[in-house]
Amino acid sequence: MNDAGALDRNDPLARFRDEFVHEEGGPLYVDGNSLGRLPKRTEAAIAEVVERWGTDLVRGWHEWIELPTEIGDELAEHALGARPSEVAVTDSVTVNLYKLASAVLAARPDKRVVVTDLDNFPTDRYVLEGVADDLRFVEPDPVEGPTVADVEAACASGDVGLVALSHVAYRPGALADLRGITEVAHAAGALMLWDVSHAVGAVEIGLEEHGVDLAVGCTYKYLNAGPGAPAFLYVREPLQEELRTPIQGWFGQRDQFAMGHPYESADGVSKFLAGSPQILGLVAIRASLELLAEAGIETVAAKGRALTDYAVELHDELLAPLGVELGTPRDAAKRGAHVSFRHPEAWRICRALIERADVIPDYRGPDSVRFGFPPLYTRFVDVRESIERLRGVIEREEYLEVDAAFTRVT
Amino acid sequence: MNDAGALDRNDPLARFRDEFVHEEGGPLYVDGNSLGRLPKRTEAAIAEVVERWGTDLVRGWHEWIELPTEIGDELAEHALGARPSEVAVTDSVTVNLYKLASAVLAARPDKRVVVTDLDNFPTDRYVLEGVADDLRFVEPDPVEGPTVADVEAACASGDVGLVALSHVAYRPGALADLRGITEVAHAAGALMLWDVSHAVGAVEIGLEEHGVDLAVGCTYKYLNAGPGAPAFLYVREPLQEELRTPIQGWFGQRDQFAMGHPYESADGVSKFLAGSPQILGLVAIRASLELLAEAGIETVAAKGRALTDYAVELHDELLAPLGVELGTPRDAAKRGAHVSFRHPEAWRICRALIERADVIPDYRGPDSVRFGFPPLYTRFVDVRESIERLRGVIEREEYLEVDAAFTRVT
Repeated sequence: MNDAGALDRNDPLARFRDEFVHEEGGPLYVDGNSLGRLPKRTEAAIAEVVERWGTDLVRGWHEWIELPTEIGDELAEHALGARPSEVAVTDSVTVNLYKLASAVLAARPDKRVVVTDLDNFPTDRYVLEGVADDLRFVEPDPVEGPTVADVEAACASGDVGLVALSHVAYRPGALADLRGITEVAHAAGALMLWDVSHAVGAVEIGLEEHGVDLAVGCTYKYLNAGPGAPAFLYVREPLQEELRTPIQGWFGQRDQFAMGHPYESADGVSKFLAGSPQILGLVAIRASLELLAEAGIETVAAKGRALTDYAVELHDELLAPLGVELGTPRDAAKRGAHVSFRHPEAWRICRALIERADVIPDYRGPDSVRFGFPPLYTRFVDVRESIERLRGVIEREEYLEVDAAFTRVT
Repeated sequence: MNDAGALDRNDPLARFRDEFVHEEGGPLYVDGNSLGRLPKRTEAAIAEVVERWGTDLVRGWHEWIELPTEIGDELAEHALGARPSEVAVTDSVTVNLYKLASAVLAARPDKRVVVTDLDNFPTDRYVLEGVADDLRFVEPDPVEGPTVADVEAACASGDVGLVALSHVAYRPGALADLRGITEVAHAAGALMLWDVSHAVGAVEIGLEEHGVDLAVGCTYKYLNAGPGAPAFLYVREPLQEELRTPIQGWFGQRDQFAMGHPYESADGVSKFLAGSPQILGLVAIRASLELLAEAGIETVAAKGRALTDYAVELHDELLAPLGVELGTPRDAAKRGAHVSFRHPEAWRICRALIERADVIPDYRGPDSVRFGFPPLYTRFVDVRESIERLRGVIEREEYLEVDAAFTRVT
């Protein structure tokens, strides 16, 4: 068994923990990962932009107006492995996925079938269900996620225009074979869209290197940009001319402030912008990306693998004997920065962790306690302590004492 | 000629000016109205929610998650004259207009023609162009805006499913006959959608009273919620069951956190939510609405009419002799809280106002200098002073000395 203290002493990212706000005496936060912690510099960056709103007033827009693509370029460089002018920060994941999937189907009317997986994040499934003539579901292994073979089989009919999957699966944390799946989608004549919401800021993605066509993702998990910060979209440069957004907004108009008539699409990824960008959220993303750039995504991802390796080791030692099953791939190369522990009483266990053990996990139905270990601020002692407390709650059956009613949670 | 000082002394809203940040020695701000001023309490409200993100972490969502409809209800009550459960705060005007217009056309496939006006705000025209099979343009009087007769004529063919107009026209500031136009749209079997972006917080709207079916609007003008704060949408209760959003997101799913399959639309206006709401912007709207509720929209609108009456009086005295034409209706009951002054050199006059007279207006092509007078913080002396400086710039031909190149502006 590894020693958490020694692992922390050897952590090249240890200093980044102090870049985030930690409440004195606050709970052990292993939410996995619905909302990343607040970076201290983000608090300052938001206060500064609010102050500028007060003094610069409308003149602030001279700088703000380019933020969706400027910060898109920063995301491309530091988090996505994309090229400049391929990423825009705008809207929500839901709206961005809608725009891109609709654009693909409109451009290829003879290939109206979309493939996704039945365990994909709900909003992805719902959006795709709304836009596809026919939505075909891969039924992946619940732990390992969709495989190259799954996708190859689903595309065999030749009528698939788009394959849309998540890079890191929201429940098990399985990391899909981004390159391999993209290749089989292409071989079947389909475009490949990755939702990288649970991956971005936690693992290396390499959109460019792996030939990915399209991607969407959020910024409030491992990018720590705060509740409801804007999402992003990626459109590979050669596709930017062919695809058209269904939502023709003034921020996607060629000469926006000419305010002319009729609509004439902007060039490049900007054509997928719609309405006014949310400036406070954009500024928060920029602040977070500074941290990621300083740390380097390779180092962050390596620490993520080490943290989750340690969690698997602790699972085997402390949780497995109590009947908990690991809900996450054992191969570190095949997972993101969160792990799931499966137990039939997962819901009540989560409640007991919050109410009695001062640990904040999250529940993902039907049977998963999800722990996230954002590498920039999670210590190995946090991994150990959270899993020890989880063991305590299960061992002492404390979960039997909490209210079993399922209430709305995030 | 009225005395500005006396008007200010009799202003029942005078105390609200101090609720906003005014930079010491800052410019005369009559931007009309691309970005409202920062309310002091908003600065505090944003700082508080950022702090809560840092300490409450994901638990903050227990309160935040209902904000889109809670603040929708506040907007309905204090600004829109709508009933509870008819308004949701979400996305941008562009995206909301897309959702509602698409929903109407999908529900009435036999009436695929949409009517709007050629002077409608650009993003409205672009969105509608993208969704309508046939977009029919009213060509309104450039000052008075579209009339009941214009809309009646455009709907005569019987194939119109939707009429979509702006309540206050962004360039001239003309206030449309919301009740009369809604009636003729209904008589033609069409639904009526109003974009109230330039009206909300400046004039009384009365969506319920006037039988309006649908509306969208932004919050960063007279609602002072900051750059890129979220927009809202209104769906009259009896229509909520019939209409379906094209963007099927998890925030519009009936039982969101069951994360089930397949998509099952939520009831009510919530079905038009899509992705994660932007919390900082929502909190800013709530802070602003407190001010509006304290002031009362009737009192705000009355002051708006008095301010613009005074601007018209000053135009006639100071600007008309220099060849400036009033680009805004003379009847106070027929305009919002901004006025346009027309001059062939409007672009360079705006530049000169900014660079040489310390006045911030905005330019709206081809020939308008637009001044906005948000009633909560504009004094009659500001109206007088801004128009006197405008007169000076024109009289001394200072605009001839600035760079004529048209650059991107907001």
